[in-house]
Amino acid sequence: MREIHTPEEHPKESIVSELKNDRLLRALLRQNVDVTPVWMMRQAGRYLPEYRETRAKAGSFMDLCRNPQLACEVTLQPLERFPLDAAILFSDILTIPDAMGLGLYFSEGEGPKFARPVRDEAAVKALGVPDPEQELDYVMDAVRVIRGELDGSVPLIGFSGSPWTLATYMVEGGGTKNFALSKGMMFERPDLMHQMLDKLAAAVTAYLNGQVAAGAQALMIFDTWGGVLSPRDYELFSLAYMRKIVAGLTRESDGRRVPVVLFTKNGGQWLPQMAESGADALGVDWTTDLADARVAVRDKVALQGNVDPCILYASPERIRDEVGRVLNSYGSGPGHVFNLGHGIHPNVDPDHAAVLVEAVHELSKPYHQ
Amino acid sequence: MREIHTPEEHPKESIVSELKNDRLLRALLRQNVDVTPVWMMRQAGRYLPEYRETRAKAGSFMDLCRNPQLACEVTLQPLERFPLDAAILFSDILTIPDAMGLGLYFSEGEGPKFARPVRDEAAVKALGVPDPEQELDYVMDAVRVIRGELDGSVPLIGFSGSPWTLATYMVEGGGTKNFALSKGMMFERPDLMHQMLDKLAAAVTAYLNGQVAAGAQALMIFDTWGGVLSPRDYELFSLAYMRKIVAGLTRESDGRRVPVVLFTKNGGQWLPQMAESGADALGVDWTTDLADARVAVRDKVALQGNVDPCILYASPERIRDEVGRVLNSYGSGPGHVFNLGHGIHPNVDPDHAAVLVEAVHELSKPYHQ
Repeated sequence: MREIHTPEEHPKESIVSELKNDRLLRALLRQNVDVTPVWMMRQAGRYLPEYRETRAKAGSFMDLCRNPQLACEVTLQPLERFPLDAAILFSDILTIPDAMGLGLYFSEGEGPKFARPVRDEAAVKALGVPDPEQELDYVMDAVRVIRGELDGSVPLIGFSGSPWTLATYMVEGGGTKNFALSKGMMFERPDLMHQMLDKLAAAVTAYLNGQVAAGAQALMIFDTWGGVLSPRDYELFSLAYMRKIVAGLTRESDGRRVPVVLFTKNGGQWLPQMAESGADALGVDWTTDLADARVAVRDKVALQGNVDPCILYASPERIRDEVGRVLNSYGSGPGHVFNLGHGIHPNVDPDHAAVLVEAVHELSKPYHQ
Repeated sequence: MREIHTPEEHPKESIVSELKNDRLLRALLRQNVDVTPVWMMRQAGRYLPEYRETRAKAGSFMDLCRNPQLACEVTLQPLERFPLDAAILFSDILTIPDAMGLGLYFSEGEGPKFARPVRDEAAVKALGVPDPEQELDYVMDAVRVIRGELDGSVPLIGFSGSPWTLATYMVEGGGTKNFALSKGMMFERPDLMHQMLDKLAAAVTAYLNGQVAAGAQALMIFDTWGGVLSPRDYELFSLAYMRKIVAGLTRESDGRRVPVVLFTKNGGQWLPQMAESGADALGVDWTTDLADARVAVRDKVALQGNVDPCILYASPERIRDEVGRVLNSYGSGPGHVFNLGHGIHPNVDPDHAAVLVEAVHELSKPYHQ
């Protein structure tokens, strides 16, 4: 394992080294590239034995997130294995509610939980907007360390959960299957839900701007649960707040534009509205064909996606076929970042991920001539 | 509790009594009605205290399904509370794989499980097509008893899971979050998956035809997991087999057409293809606006849906508002059956369900003038 420096050893100057591989940034801005860039959601994760080792060393999952050097270590691990075109900050979408004082913890086999869920007016009123360099300094430190260690090899993507997505966890007190409490509040007390979403939009804006100041070169907003809403409620309770965030983001750093990607899981039907949000690119899951998505967004924004992560259970030959099919569905011209349509599964063979990444670079050349 | 007769006490002649309320059948066939018909997915279920009482009396969930008189009792319970326009057979979508010998059981808090999952060629080859009047006679008996007890008050809907949906449970051995094994087989051994789906399509066709012969007046195919597929895989592995089933169904009984409804959860993007399947109507979840759905299917088929079941956590006023909004989204003219976009949740107040049902009848009159 390479030596990773502390935040103090990474002065601001060291991180402006020229970017050697800017395919991701170019593709997200619909500029020409030589081959289609590729990264994988959750590329730093449990499917890698070296990740499991670092995770064991760290203690809990949140201990890993809170340790900038270990967060950097796991962020870099997939890049040492595969010729990926981007690194993504290793962190969790629930750092913001945790910084708001909700008491995040992970219970074995049950996923994330909050000790103090937000279910009434008093709890919503008590929510503050965390200062990224105070309550979330460990994330900003991780960004600085990673950016320094990347040394311009590939760009670093920062991220956040969407306000609606964060609100569902905050109201439910953890994950949920039917969104009874969060939608209950949305339907019965829309005023309260809007108050909470407003604070979350401010918090996410500050958090993402903090990440850009610390060195993030592209940003992604994960709207994991926007897809469980009706079209009207998606507009009112999710997209409206993502639009507000995008409008408030720092869009330039080191003299380059910082592209923003919105990803609403199961949001294929709403791509036309999402394309008008001010984002540069949209994440697309595999339930939408990229050819249809491209028509839906009228080539206004780039598209990121969208192979079914389950393809990684198949043979190398089938993986290559499917990569070819997805590249072909997007077709020629700029504006495609290859990705899975969802995070890589924990029990996937890393060698299969290697096949996918290599196939993207190899098979995409004809689309960029 | 009213007295419910045994299957033997319901001779075939008794069930051809004239249908007093045929709104559902008319609406599914896009014929004029006085008010929009309404029923609720899982209307016979845990949110009703009388259901929980019968369930406790029966023993296990499958004991309840296997007892035609108790299955009839719970089927009728919601009709005694609310002016619903249809009854739906109380049963489970996994009766077919159980009849194929997979050994269905329910483990507390974990949902359905199969003792003998289908994961290789030998297991697929060993699958037979159950005879509805043999291995599934308890379902046919339940249909006969319910139809007799309904005595023409409202039509009885029979149902089945879709082949793809059944296959996911059969391969995984139960419910799943990421479909690793079932999609693994689909990607790696599409030939094997197609063999299994072929047998399932034959089994579902026979099962639904058996239900029609026993007295079902409308049919619904629940494609709970078609929405986790890519557009191409949805066409190849789910819709193709539903189309085959629809083509093989008995479409007339007692001199009336037996309408068929297809429902793919999260299938809003595929309504145009589904409208060409031969089905009379499509179920629509709340993530698609009915006005858009109506345009997508070009008024070729009726639409059933689509309020978010979480609205039932809100106040009566909000429930009425939302019913009004959904009726308005469909607009004027025939072809709308009001329903939830998903099954009613177990912790809903039955009085709120009453508000919804009454609001549909009251507020829909102007749309049928």
